[in-house]
Order: sequence, then C-alpha cells, then structure tokens
Amino acid sequence: MSCGEFELIARYFNRVTSSRRDVEKGIGDDCALLNLPEKQTLAISTDTLVAGVHFLRDIHPADLGYKALAVNLSDLAAMGADPAWLTLALTLPEVDERWLAAFSDSLFELLDYYDMQLIGGDTTRGPLSLTLGIHGLVPVGRALKRSGARPGDWIFVTGTLGDSAAGLALLQHHQRLSDPAVHEALIKRHLRPMPRILQGQALRNLATSAIDLSDGLISDLGHILAASRVGARLNLETLPLSAALHDHFEPEQVLRWALSGGEDYELCFTVPEVNRGALDVALGHLGVPYTCIGQIAPEGEGLTLLENGKPRRFNHKGFDHFDAK
Amino acid sequence: MSCGEFELIARYFNRVTSSRRDVEKGIGDDCALLNLPEKQTLAISTDTLVAGVHFLRDIHPADLGYKALAVNLSDLAAMGADPAWLTLALTLPEVDERWLAAFSDSLFELLDYYDMQLIGGDTTRGPLSLTLGIHGLVPVGRALKRSGARPGDWIFVTGTLGDSAAGLALLQHHQRLSDPAVHEALIKRHLRPMPRILQGQALRNLATSAIDLSDGLISDLGHILAASRVGARLNLETLPLSAALHDHFEPEQVLRWALSGGEDYELCFTVPEVNRGALDVALGHLGVPYTCIGQIAPEGEGLTLLENGKPRRFNHKGFDHFDAK
Repeated sequence: MSCGEFELIARYFNRVTSSRRDVEKGIGDDCALLNLPEKQTLAISTDTLVAGVHFLRDIHPADLGYKALAVNLSDLAAMGADPAWLTLALTLPEVDERWLAAFSDSLFELLDYYDMQLIGGDTTRGPLSLTLGIHGLVPVGRALKRSGARPGDWIFVTGTLGDSAAGLALLQHHQRLSDPAVHEALIKRHLRPMPRILQGQALRNLATSAIDLSDGLISDLGHILAASRVGARLNLETLPLSAALHDHFEPEQVLRWALSGGEDYELCFTVPEVNRGALDVALGHLGVPYTCIGQIAPEGEGLTLLENGKPRRFNHKGFDHFDAK
Repeated sequence: MSCGEFELIARYFNRVTSSRRDVEKGIGDDCALLNLPEKQTLAISTDTLVAGVHFLRDIHPADLGYKALAVNLSDLAAMGADPAWLTLALTLPEVDERWLAAFSDSLFELLDYYDMQLIGGDTTRGPLSLTLGIHGLVPVGRALKRSGARPGDWIFVTGTLGDSAAGLALLQHHQRLSDPAVHEALIKRHLRPMPRILQGQALRNLATSAIDLSDGLISDLGHILAASRVGARLNLETLPLSAALHDHFEPEQVLRWALSGGEDYELCFTVPEVNRGALDVALGHLGVPYTCIGQIAPEGEGLTLLENGKPRRFNHKGFDHFDAK
C-alpha cells in the first residue's frame, strides 16, 4: 500500500465528533494528550479481535465496527465506568474503501452515542485483526471490582442469557428459524450486543462485585468467585431466558447456551440484602430486566448448580478463544 | 490452545515488578484502574508490529520484547513524557514456552528500567503480531508537540542517523562487516534502539516542537513542518553520522540512510535562539550527543536541502510500512 492509501485510511478515522474537553490533543502527534477531571480514576481495557477466531470472516464491516467497540464498552460497564476515549489498531489485508466506510461509520455512530473520542491508533497491513484500547472514568474509590462479593450477597444478571450463542449457532450453521422476527432478534443479539453502561454506573454504590459476561456465566462468575474467595449457589430455574430461546430450542441446549454460550455481554453482579431495595430504584427505570439467579456462599462450597433445589452437574466450560481454530 | 495454555501465557506476563502507587488495579479485572497524580497530563500512544512487516520473522524473541517497548517509549520521549503503564495485546500462532520466556524477560527488563507496570492486555491465537498501548505522564501544559516550531528556530537531532537502517540492511542481506565490533554495533542500533526519554523530559521547557525519528528524518521532520506550518533548511554536511557508517559505506548510501532510513528512534526538535544556552546545560550531561542540522524557515520555502550552502535534490521518501510486503 502506498503513502496515499495511508492518508486515505486516515480520512475515515480522523474525525472529531465528540464534545469532549478532556482531549488536549487527539490524533496527529506522537501521543494523544488527555487531561483527567479531578477525583476520577482511569479505567483501561484492551481487547484483540482476530478474523476467524473472534468474529466470522464474512461479518459485515458495519457489524464488526459496532461489535468491536461494544464488547470493549462492556468491560467499562463492568467497572461502572463512564466511556471516554478509544485507541484503535487496525490490521488490514488491503485497502477497501467500501469496507472502511461501513466499518468506520458504524464505529463512529457508537462512539458518538457515548460522546467518546478516537484519540489514536495505528494501521498496518496483515491478516484482518483489531486491537482496541478503551479508556473510561469512574469516581475515585467507586469502581466495581470482581473481588468484593461476600457470602450471603445475591447474584444478579441483567437481560437474558444464551441469545447471542443461539444467534451465532444460526449464523454458523446457516440455519433459519421459522419466525423471521425471532431469527433476526437472535442474530442481532450476537452481532449487536448492547453494553450495559448505564446499569454499571447505577450499580457503583450498590454492588459488591461485577463482571461482564463474555465467556459464559459459569466461567465469568467463576472469576468473581476466585477474586472474592467465595463460593456460590445458582438456581438454574431462575436463569432469565428469552421467549425466542424458550420457544425454538431444546431445553438442554438452551441451558448450555445460558450457562456457557458466551458473548452475552450482560452484567453479572452481587448485591447484599441491605441494598436490594435501592437496587430496584436504581435499575428499575433503565428498561433492561435484571434477575436474581443465586446467592454467594462460603468459599469451601465452590459453585453449586441447583434445579428446583436439587444439585445438578454441568460439564461444559465457558468459551475459550484459544480453543477455536 | 487450551485453557491451561492461557494460564501458562498469563504466568509470563502477570508480574508486578514496579513500585508504582498510581496503579489501583493492574491485571486481573475487567479493566485496570489508575489514579493520576494531580496536574499531570496523560500521554497515550498505540503501535502495532506485525511479523514480516515491522520486524524480521526470524528476530530473537528477546530482541522483539525489547524493541516493541522501546519504539513505543520513543513516542513518549517525543512528548517529553514520563513512562508509566503498558498494555500488551499479543497474537501468537502457538504457545512456545522458550519464546514466551525470552520475550517476556526482555520486556520486563525494560519495563523495570523505567519503573513501568504492565496493566493489561489480551492474548489471542493468530499470525504473530503485537499491539502496545503506552501511557505516560507529563506536567500539564508542558508536553512537546509537533506544532510549535517557528521560523528562526534551530533544528536539532540527538545521536547519529542512519545506523539502524545500516544494521537492518546487514541483517536482510546476510552481510558481515570486516570489523566484528562495528558490525555488532550497527545490528544493535537496529535491534536495541535506546528511547530518548531523559532527553525528551529535559526539552520540556526548551523545545518548541519535537518528534521521534521512526520513518526517517525527511518524513518525520515533514510532520513538524506540516503541523507547525513552516519550512526548513537542512545542512546536509552537518548530519551526525557514526564512524561506523562513515568508514564502511558509500557516502551516497550513508546520506540516503541518514535522511530516510527509518527506525533511528532519535529525537528531532526545534529550539529558539534564546534557549540554545539552556539547551547545552539541559542536554550536555545526559551522555548523548545532539547536533544542530538546520533552521526553521517560513512556510513558503518548503524543505530545502543544502550541501555546503548549495541546494541539493533528494528523492527518497521515508520508510512507509504499507510499502513493505
């Protein structure tokens, strides 16, 4: 690719559309320069997405632009942080203007929604992959960590579980459900997950721990249990399932997706009994359901899965990107 | 790769060796949490390095671990920033413990040298590439930008130019110089560039603009000229050249490397006449030479290359990564 093509690529990304006043210098120098507001802690997360591993090779660039940012926003949501700045390292096999236009338009649409600014990045030639560095702000001492869950705390999840995995399965196996609206809804849950930013922020004073569900409930809840040194009891009959899943798939399959399907990008969090009333006030008006699915137990108990009070075994672990070929 | 291999990889990188107190939470949650000191501006840069494009495929992992960080540190140096935190997104074709040990040991040696902390990242399977996100701190209002050069300012560079390009040429063509010490010195200049962190910090109050030389003097000085809307006159006979280059290569080749070889990772900066005395005090004791190579001119003049006062044409542009195949 030539120097001119570099400039062409830059044209798609060198847009300042936010009204942020904390960006002293964005794209165009050796570094971006950012001035943090007082009494804010910086939250930083990095994610790499590789074609064929993290997304289907034939994904539409608009879906990729949306999802790459959405899954990073989900990490900020899990900390209760307010989105601020993004860096994007993009490795492309070739310069395709239609691809770049669709990808960048979709990315900037979501950036604008959260008044975020793209502050830097890098473009290189190579097999298609993206690395995003996302930066958010959270009041000092108020970030939601994985490590604060205590025995007795209630375990909650936002939204419904397993829809994204169902959508991925439909895409991978080129299946179509009889009901087109349901079909599209599940595909959308996979391609256009909605980061739970507002919910995360509302939980800052209420939750003792939080994580976003990227690898599957069992795997991600496991991170909370490990970091907090506690166990948990999950009541499988309370897992929030969409009508789409419930009506169109076998119960065993649905349960597998809900527990270990991955890419739900819902929040899983723990709340002490004393905060349950305040939780209803804080989350009740945000338009996304939230469901109590179990309770934190002492560390020695490990993770127990109960179905109507009876223990149940489950062998499927969460999604592990390195298992994919 | 399996879940166990993930944990294995994590073991090489989940080391806390710095004494930083601004890291509230490093690796191990959805985001890292950082608390900035007061009156500091955050400087952020992102670089992707792809095997076969940015580094030779047979590079030793210890050299790669060093260089990947050093070239990012060079971006901080160009802003006058103090290194703080790193994120590392690593895409690997396979898990090779010897490779991981050599790479990470080398990376952490340089991180430790600057008391930096690795605060997060991501490991994925795919063709070998790295994306580093580097974060530094600079007192508010004191960052060195590209945009402050004014007509009359003197143009300086640190160190010597072209050595890295010579070292790369030796590696690529499997050539050996007759003098082994000179040979190794040039290779080292390519594989182990020394970021000019201290020089950048010393220039905070003295330089009107700065950039690090990654693509070659003409290309990078061009960024200062464009951002500052000025021209420049370069005196080619003043370009600082190492004895290694001067003694072992043709003058035309040496000039080409010095002007457009790339990967010098020296600083190029501009200083007004009034600060030249202070510059000698600030840089004189840091052990790296610095040389005045020209002067900033009005914008209309563009970039003029002079050899003993006579204009000279030069056609080679800087290194463009997308030109490489």
